[in-house]
Amino acid sequence: MTTSTSVMRSEIAEQPEALRRTLDALLPLVPELAELGRETRQVLFIARGSSDNAAVYGSYLLQAHAGRLATLASPSIATTYGSKVDLSGVLAVAISQSGRTEEIVDTMNWAAECGARTVGITNGAGSPLTQAADLALVTQAGSELAVPATKTYTTQLAALAVLALGLGADLDSGALQAVPDAIEEAIAAPQGPIELIAERLAGVQGAVISGRGMAFSTALEAALKLKEACYLHAMGLSYADLLHGPIAVVDADTPAILVAANSGPTLPGTVALAERVSSAGAPVFGIGGGQALADACDLSVPAPDLPEWAAPISLIVPAQLLTETLARRLGYNPDAPRGLGKVTQTS
Amino acid sequence: MTTSTSVMRSEIAEQPEALRRTLDALLPLVPELAELGRETRQVLFIARGSSDNAAVYGSYLLQAHAGRLATLASPSIATTYGSKVDLSGVLAVAISQSGRTEEIVDTMNWAAECGARTVGITNGAGSPLTQAADLALVTQAGSELAVPATKTYTTQLAALAVLALGLGADLDSGALQAVPDAIEEAIAAPQGPIELIAERLAGVQGAVISGRGMAFSTALEAALKLKEACYLHAMGLSYADLLHGPIAVVDADTPAILVAANSGPTLPGTVALAERVSSAGAPVFGIGGGQALADACDLSVPAPDLPEWAAPISLIVPAQLLTETLARRLGYNPDAPRGLGKVTQTS
Repeated sequence: MTTSTSVMRSEIAEQPEALRRTLDALLPLVPELAELGRETRQVLFIARGSSDNAAVYGSYLLQAHAGRLATLASPSIATTYGSKVDLSGVLAVAISQSGRTEEIVDTMNWAAECGARTVGITNGAGSPLTQAADLALVTQAGSELAVPATKTYTTQLAALAVLALGLGADLDSGALQAVPDAIEEAIAAPQGPIELIAERLAGVQGAVISGRGMAFSTALEAALKLKEACYLHAMGLSYADLLHGPIAVVDADTPAILVAANSGPTLPGTVALAERVSSAGAPVFGIGGGQALADACDLSVPAPDLPEWAAPISLIVPAQLLTETLARRLGYNPDAPRGLGKVTQTS
Repeated sequence: MTTSTSVMRSEIAEQPEALRRTLDALLPLVPELAELGRETRQVLFIARGSSDNAAVYGSYLLQAHAGRLATLASPSIATTYGSKVDLSGVLAVAISQSGRTEEIVDTMNWAAECGARTVGITNGAGSPLTQAADLALVTQAGSELAVPATKTYTTQLAALAVLALGLGADLDSGALQAVPDAIEEAIAAPQGPIELIAERLAGVQGAVISGRGMAFSTALEAALKLKEACYLHAMGLSYADLLHGPIAVVDADTPAILVAANSGPTLPGTVALAERVSSAGAPVFGIGGGQALADACDLSVPAPDLPEWAAPISLIVPAQLLTETLARRLGYNPDAPRGLGKVTQTS
C-alpha cells in the first residue's frame, strides 16, 4: 500500500516538541540521579531493539564524558540462564519504550536482586518498569502509533543525556536544551538530498551504515529503521568493525551510508572511510559530518551544528525521514511493517 | 577464481589438533588465572572482528557459569576519546589473533592505566599483546594463512573456557578435553547437508543468522564468515533482537540459519523461531539443535553431543565449511577475500 503521507512522518515532525517536554520533565531530576551516582560505580544498560541502540549512545556518553564504565547487559543471563551475578556498585539502567516488555522488566528486577540500584527509562508512565525502578525517567513523547520508533527513540537519548548530567558529566545543559530547535529547523529545511538518496537506495538489496563513537548508535538505529520498514539488508557497523571483515560486502550494488557529527574526534576517520569505500567503487551517502564528509560522499544530508555528544539526537532524524520516504517509494506502509507489533514480547 | 580446494579448508581440518595443543598448553594456567580472579570482580573484553565474537561467547560463559559480570568494551573510548574510566576490580581480557592490532593493545594498556588487571588471548607468541598483559594465554593454532579466521577462532573459544575454569566456573574440564575428538568426527562425516545448503544459498543476496545465549556468538561469527568470504548480506542477530524489528527482512529470498546446542535452555526458543520463520514463508536451515531443530528446518547439519557451554567450539565448524563451500561455488577464492588483509589495523 502506498500512502501519500504516514503516521511515522507526523511523529518524526513531533520530535522537537516531544524533546522540549522531556527535557522540562527530566532536568529537575539531576539531583536525584547524582544521589544514585554517589552510591554506584558503573552503569549496566538493559534494553532491546531501538532502546538497545539508545543504550549504545548512553554507554559512549557516560564513558567519554562521565568517567564511568558503562556497558550492555545480556538479558538472557537473567531470563534464560537464571544465573546470579554480583552487581553491587552497579547502576542498572533499563530502557523500554512501553515499559511493558517483560524481558526488560524481569532483567531489571534480576539486577536489583543481584545488588544493583536501578533506573527505568520509558515512555510508559505508570508502566511496570516505572513501578519497579528505584528512579524512573519518564520520557514525554506522547503516544507513538507507527511501529518504527522515532520520537520515543530521540526522547530516550535526551533522557540519557540527563542521566549523564546527573552522573557528573562535563556537559553543558544549555547545549542540550538547544537541540529541539536545531531539529525543528532541520525538519523544515528542503528534503531534496533525502529524496535523491531514497531514489538511489530503491534498487539495492543491501547497504552498510557506519559511524563511530557517539554516532555508532545512530548507524545501528538507522540500519534497524531501514530493515524494519524497507526490508533492506541494512548492516549497522562501527567504523572499526567494518574494516574487520564486512568491508568485503561493499560494492557497486551495496552502498554505504556514513554518519558523523560536524566536528569531534571521529570525523577524520569517517571521512577517510568514505574515501576508501568510494575508491572500492561503492556509492557513499553521508549524514552530517560537515563539509568534509559531504565532499567525500556522492550525496549527503547536512546536520545542525551541535556538540558531538549531543549530535546523535539530531543525526537520526534524516535517517528516519529517509526510511519513511524509501518505504513509501517502495510501496510499503511505513507505519505497519510486516511481522511486527508495537510492543515486542520476548522471554 | 574457482579452486578445487583451499587453504581455508585445510585450516578448518586442522582444528582438532590445534585445540588439543591449546588445551594442553593452557589448562596448566588455571591456578594463575584463579589468582587474578581473586583480585578482580568482573571481566571486560577488548576485541574486534572474529575475536569480538569469541568475546561474546566468553561473556555468556562467565556470566552463566562463573557468577561474574562480563561485558564488552568500546575501544574508541580509549583510542579516540582518550577518556579515563575507573576500572579498579576489573579483569580486562584482550583478544587478538595476531596480538599486533594496535587498537587492541592500546586499549588493554589503557585499561591497565585505569586500574584493571589484564589477560591477553592471542595466537601471536611473543607479540606486543603477550608482552603487555599481566598474563598471556597463547593459543596453539599454528600459522593461519587464509584471511577468514577458523582455527584461531576456535582456539580462542578454548582459551576462554580455560579462563572460565580459572575464574571458578562450575564446568567439567573433561568435557572440554572431549571437544577436539567430537569436532574431528564431525569433519570426517559426509558433508551432504552442507553442500545442499550451499546450493540453496547460492542464489540469495542476504540471510539472517540467529542463535541465543552461548550460541549467539556462533551466529555472529557465521555471519561474519559469510560476509567476508561470500559477500553475502548476512546479519547475525540474537533470537530476541531478531524479533525486535529485523524479522521483517526474512522472506522467501532471505533465508534464516539458526544455531543451537543439542540441549540447553535456549533450544526451545530456537525451535519456535524456526517454526515462525518457516510460517513466514522463508527457508530455514539449522546447525545443531538435535532432532527438534532438524524437524523444524528445511535442511540441517547435525552437531556433536556436547554440553551447551562447550557446544559453540564445535557449532562454528559447519558454518566454516558452509562458507568455504559457498565461496568456491560462487567462484570466489575463500582464502583471500577482496578488501581484507590478515592483520587489520584500526585506530
